[in-house]
Amino acid sequence: MTRDLTITDVTLTPILVADPPLLNTAGIHQPYTPRLIVEVFTADGTTGLGETYGDTKYLELARPLAEQLVGRQISDLNGLFGAADEVAVDASRVTGQVDVGGLRGVQTADKLRLSVVSAFEVACLDALGKALGLPVHALLGGKVRDAVEYSAYLFYKRSGENDTWGAALDPAGIVEQARTFTERYGFTSFKLKGGVFPPDEEVAAVKALAAAFPGHPLRLDPNGAWSVETSLKVAEELRDVLEYLEDPATGVPAMAEVAAKSGVPLATNMCVTTFDEIKDAFTQGAVQVVLSDHHYWGGLRNTQQLAAICRAFGVGVSMHSNTHLGISLAAMTQVAATVPNLHHACDSHYPWQSEDVLTERLTFDGGKVAVSDAPGLGVALDREKLAFLHQRWLDDDGTYKDRDDAAAMRLTDPQWTTPAVPRW
Amino acid sequence: MTRDLTITDVTLTPILVADPPLLNTAGIHQPYTPRLIVEVFTADGTTGLGETYGDTKYLELARPLAEQLVGRQISDLNGLFGAADEVAVDASRVTGQVDVGGLRGVQTADKLRLSVVSAFEVACLDALGKALGLPVHALLGGKVRDAVEYSAYLFYKRSGENDTWGAALDPAGIVEQARTFTERYGFTSFKLKGGVFPPDEEVAAVKALAAAFPGHPLRLDPNGAWSVETSLKVAEELRDVLEYLEDPATGVPAMAEVAAKSGVPLATNMCVTTFDEIKDAFTQGAVQVVLSDHHYWGGLRNTQQLAAICRAFGVGVSMHSNTHLGISLAAMTQVAATVPNLHHACDSHYPWQSEDVLTERLTFDGGKVAVSDAPGLGVALDREKLAFLHQRWLDDDGTYKDRDDAAAMRLTDPQWTTPAVPRW
Repeated sequence: MTRDLTITDVTLTPILVADPPLLNTAGIHQPYTPRLIVEVFTADGTTGLGETYGDTKYLELARPLAEQLVGRQISDLNGLFGAADEVAVDASRVTGQVDVGGLRGVQTADKLRLSVVSAFEVACLDALGKALGLPVHALLGGKVRDAVEYSAYLFYKRSGENDTWGAALDPAGIVEQARTFTERYGFTSFKLKGGVFPPDEEVAAVKALAAAFPGHPLRLDPNGAWSVETSLKVAEELRDVLEYLEDPATGVPAMAEVAAKSGVPLATNMCVTTFDEIKDAFTQGAVQVVLSDHHYWGGLRNTQQLAAICRAFGVGVSMHSNTHLGISLAAMTQVAATVPNLHHACDSHYPWQSEDVLTERLTFDGGKVAVSDAPGLGVALDREKLAFLHQRWLDDDGTYKDRDDAAAMRLTDPQWTTPAVPRW
Repeated sequence: MTRDLTITDVTLTPILVADPPLLNTAGIHQPYTPRLIVEVFTADGTTGLGETYGDTKYLELARPLAEQLVGRQISDLNGLFGAADEVAVDASRVTGQVDVGGLRGVQTADKLRLSVVSAFEVACLDALGKALGLPVHALLGGKVRDAVEYSAYLFYKRSGENDTWGAALDPAGIVEQARTFTERYGFTSFKLKGGVFPPDEEVAAVKALAAAFPGHPLRLDPNGAWSVETSLKVAEELRDVLEYLEDPATGVPAMAEVAAKSGVPLATNMCVTTFDEIKDAFTQGAVQVVLSDHHYWGGLRNTQQLAAICRAFGVGVSMHSNTHLGISLAAMTQVAATVPNLHHACDSHYPWQSEDVLTERLTFDGGKVAVSDAPGLGVALDREKLAFLHQRWLDDDGTYKDRDDAAAMRLTDPQWTTPAVPRW
């Protein structure tokens, strides 16, 4: 058997997808958020799908990298990093205003590159799996579980455009949202995106969740908005009900102090978001669970490496999520299925996304996504849906092409700026 | 394309291979050393080759694990570890007299299991690659180099059975051996196995190498035989010519003290030989280069994970070698080709092995082994050679079925016992 797995073409399709008005410490989700759909084509007619952030700065990197991929083998995944290193990053894109990046830790040229690489890596794995008749998990060493558990990702939110959920701005609203999540998807653990209201209100919301769902794992994530003192106070109030506290404070020293003094496990997708940040944070005991986002860690194989590092250092691992579609959920599920030390339900925004580019949406059953054994990722592109969402991107005057939660907030609150941390 | 990659049979062939009388701190190599050749057969007729240690305790583990593999997919590599965990380890095998194990760090039940798993993992990767038409490196994410550099592995040695090299018992003998290595194989870096003679003699040998091969990377490895004081003295004398000092002292505290006080990089294949040992050693700065042996780290994918951990912590990585044949050299070369942060020439005993089970020996050109792009490992089994070496194992009365360097030493030095450390 010899198939020609040389990459002959790569297409990049930026899209805008509907997003509900979810609140976080930086502002509010825009009604449309940019994503980038990557398709890789090989000489033997195989195609592969990938997905990543779609803001302009990612597109600018993706275009030259896509050109470099033509002529390479889809199996040459390690080589993607070298190829990406050769793509120059406009420094102003890194240091400029990056609201979403702020919620995902420090933004660097490397991290931008890795976020782009991840989409190509997933697309290559999808194509390779299809060409070889193997699911992506088999290309990653094989699944160690048949389904991957996700948590209900609860948000304070307003009612508004692209939304059928209605507002949730207090403990009762959060509990109601959690009940809906449970009924629709079967989730049994809950994460509340915090940093939106004063800590006492968010503590009250978590306590309301604990009362409504006794014994279920709960998490609160203020995206680093709190001081050490506030973090310790919240940890003290919630220690009996929290599975972990996620990024209560910003930076390794603050996180290390909160961890040491509170004894409550701290998770992160801000304090440790790159391999370079691991040593300092692990050595200081700043984090007890790292939430990998395969997009900015550079793909599925890097996520496995991160998991191996966590395992060696006795640090937990699970998965972070930003607004994403089904390609990324399928990718998350495939890699999560291969990670032996995944002991926490993964995050996913997917239930908040009413739109997708797939012929068939992925589903949660009992809070879990079944691990597909079909070749590749096991998903299929709906070209009509893709074209529709791409047309929206084409028609956009620039309002939504770069996600900016603070700008979205200013539409209703003209004085809003991203709050300095610690906010409380 | 769907091929049936279910494992239908696994054969285990223990062999005895000729080994020259090489000296180390524990004793001397036996004239024959046990290895285990693993063959995996799949439903579609594909076969895969693996190789590992062949002592009785490995065979006892390999047999039940081999039975468990039948019916599994060759792509289910992550599952090998779970399967191995279910194989009981006879505790007496772990704590018993294990001379060779002593040179490879602490021996545990896990490490025994991983050494066996590695042979199955390599055999599965070889078979998977052959079935899919891909080299093993492509199954590991693709090569980042076309050839892997090895170092000349110099030994103090006697003349004797299974040997055409002659004795090397002083600086002149070591330099002559190095010249022969250079002429035959093109090696440009040199490692001397030390811990055999008083440190001053070994320092003199390294200085003689430095004079004979100015500017070439040099290493000295006494297998943990020295005290901290001796290690510091040797480091001081050789600091200008050493690429690194390997395992001068035994244990993390001693290594950390030598590293901190000498400033000379320390490599190890004894202080850090399992994932569990990494945290303590890295946190204390005990080692600057970890030498992975894919056998006892549990295979090629675990070796990649080790490399990722080293990279994140700014620790170097290279590869260790014990007596091995061409299957393992091919495996080492395939994985080494995929490790971006491999900045030191790997060790290999292969030039010392006059026998092999392959139809064609691997060759060193300019000190490097070319990375095969043929499907699987790119090597083929010579069944006649295998049968010959297996017959030797069958005919053996038990003298050589378990490698015991101290017992071999006692044949000429009846009072010999493995020296306590620190020896000097």
